[in-house]
This record gives sequence, structure tokens and C-alpha cells, in this order.
Amino acid sequence: MSIIDLSHTIKSGDLVFEGMKMPELKSLRNVKENGFAITSIEIHSHNGTHIDAPSHMIDRAKTLTDFPISKFYGKAIQIPCQEFLNQEIPLKYLLKYEAKIKQSEFIIFNSGWYKKWNTPDYFDHFPVLSLESAVWLSNFNLKGIGLDIISIDHIKSETVPVHLTLMNKEILIIENLNNLDQLSTEFFTFQCFPIKFDQIDGSPIRAVALTE
Amino acid sequence: MSIIDLSHTIKSGDLVFEGMKMPELKSLRNVKENGFAITSIEIHSHNGTHIDAPSHMIDRAKTLTDFPISKFYGKAIQIPCQEFLNQEIPLKYLLKYEAKIKQSEFIIFNSGWYKKWNTPDYFDHFPVLSLESAVWLSNFNLKGIGLDIISIDHIKSETVPVHLTLMNKEILIIENLNNLDQLSTEFFTFQCFPIKFDQIDGSPIRAVALTE
Repeated sequence: MSIIDLSHTIKSGDLVFEGMKMPELKSLRNVKENGFAITSIEIHSHNGTHIDAPSHMIDRAKTLTDFPISKFYGKAIQIPCQEFLNQEIPLKYLLKYEAKIKQSEFIIFNSGWYKKWNTPDYFDHFPVLSLESAVWLSNFNLKGIGLDIISIDHIKSETVPVHLTLMNKEILIIENLNNLDQLSTEFFTFQCFPIKFDQIDGSPIRAVALTE
Repeated sequence: MSIIDLSHTIKSGDLVFEGMKMPELKSLRNVKENGFAITSIEIHSHNGTHIDAPSHMIDRAKTLTDFPISKFYGKAIQIPCQEFLNQEIPLKYLLKYEAKIKQSEFIIFNSGWYKKWNTPDYFDHFPVLSLESAVWLSNFNLKGIGLDIISIDHIKSETVPVHLTLMNKEILIIENLNNLDQLSTEFFTFQCFPIKFDQIDGSPIRAVALTE
């Protein structure tokens, strides 16, 4: 078995959505002066590679601690979408994956966009799901949909229809995945266990893939 | 397969080591007023269920991002130690597990102490490893040693010899595990993937066990 790390490194000053605070890691104690090192971590619930809970966009919907632990582990299929840069991924393209999606608990869209992480280009012109695609996908028995992008809706969308469509069906959205080109198999086991912050709308994760 | 959650919930005001700041989770945006919810997370590298990297106690030793991802996943054995409350776990007791430890990558000590989490009693009188036990264990090919306790040394120890013995061999120390009584098998797969904070001395984790 091999384990593939699908997570970005989080460090002080990482680029974030406009208007949000950057992550900040600061030394609180160090070995030379104090005998032990401790680092203060100031982040928010959607920094780095992370999960969106339904409560991120829907009032009184489920938070991450409202799901059983098995929600964050399962059989995944990767679907390439490099051809849809600056476009919507159309339903017509997804239809050919229908039989494979039926066998899967997670879909991971690989756009290659993760290579732009921490550059200003990361924040626009990426592929997003069309609303028609999202509605169709929301009728499968999926635990989550992951992507190597900062949003599953257009960056300037105020109505976030794709997020809402998936969240209404309690499908997790996993954003800012990394290293997707290292996935050499179409199917794999995907894991996205969040830190157990109480009743939270999202959490950084160490996303990993397990392959035979 | 079943997945067992071995992590404590992290919430504002959790009790911590004397002199350290409690975790603080604060709403930054909410759905009703902003259309989306975001939570600010102020923690430190050793809050909740977490890993100690060697750099926690040894200057210029490995941080969590210096290890391959496979370091955080492997075959584990649980060793009960409820009988050693307020005592050291002696080498004599561990010797009978020698053959089983040889087959394992992680040892998880189950003291039952996790039931005192978030009470003042949590912070003293727990079992610790004797130095002789630590030296003996450090000669196995272990990835990590986990426990349901806040420290693997006596709480008032200033020289932390058990920590240093294990860290010098790059054995991870996983502290504050939860729910260990839910482990119904002696062997299981243990996972402790940390959040990928850059060059950090420790990290909260979502520790889980996978059993057949």
C-alpha cells in the first residue's frame, strides 16, 4: 500500500481569500530558552486544504462534529478536468462516469490548478461545476466531492448555487487539495478526517489517498 | 471495517497546562448576516489530541514536516496500563509484550485516564513510563507511542527523560488520546496524520483506529 499526501503546507502569510486574515504561526516557547518548543497557531476554519461543512453556507445545517467519523473515509474516483479551465464542467462530460460514480463515495476532480497554490492566479479562472452537473451529482450517494481549487462555485458568485446544492444533500466539499497528479490509479481510498473542533463550519485536514 | 475516533473535541476554554492559553474558537462571519460562516481558531501546537515532534524538546531535531507521510500510519498494539495509576510502568511488565511489540509500529497505552479529560484531576497522578522502560522501547523499530494522558513524563519533571529518550530515536509521542476502551482488538491500524503546519514542533490530529 502507498500513502499519497494530498495537502498543502500551511505557513504564515499564505495567500487567502480577499478580506480574510492570513494564517499566522508564531513561536511561543523555544528549546534553548524554555526547554521546550510551542507554536501558537492562528488560522480560520477554511485555511489550507480543508472541508466545508453544510453549516458553512446553510443556517443551522450540520457542522463537522455532527457527522459520524465514517463520513470522512471512503472509496474515491478521480475525474480529470484539466480541459475545463475557466469553464464549467458540463453534465455531458460527467455522464460517461455514471457507472463509476455509483461505485464511489467520493469524487476528486483533478484540474491541475493546485500548481498555482500561493500565487495570485490561484484565485480566478479555475474550472467550476455547472449547476446542472451539481444537481445531477447531488442525487448519488456521495460522502464528499474534492477539488484542487479554492471554490466549487465561480469566485465572484454571491448565490453559491453549487455549494448550496451539495450542502443541502449533506455532501462534504473538500477544497485546496494538492498533488493530485501523484494519483496513479482511477480508484483509491480517500481520507479527510477533520480536527475535532466543536460544532465548526469547516476545518483544515491532512487529506491523504491510500492506493494498493 | 470499523473506524474508531480516538480524539477529544477541542473547544474554547478547554483546560490546558498551567501557564498556557486555552483554545479559542470565535465566529468571524455567520450565515444570517454574511451569507457564510467562518470561525477563527486560536490554538497552540500541543492542544487537544496531538503529536509531539522531536523538535518539541530537542533543538534542531526533526519537525513534523520533516517526516514522510507514512510515519503517521501503521500497525498498532494496545497495552493496558490501568493498574499503574500514579506509578511508573515498569520494564518487567512490558517484557511479556516483547514479541508483539516487534510486530508493531505503534504502541498505544490504555490507562483509562482519558475519562478525566477537562477536569483538574487530569493533570497529575497518571501512569508514566519508567526511564528503563523508555530506553528499552526506544530500541524497537517504532513509529510512535500513544497514550490517553497529557505527558509521558511526570507532570513536574524538568528534565523530561522519557520524552528525550524517545525523541532521540525519532519516535513520535501522541498525547491526549480518547475513547481507548472502544478498541476491542489487541492489534489495529493507527493513524495520526498531523495538519501540515510548516516546520512545526507539534500538531493537533484526528487520531483514528481502523479495525477489521
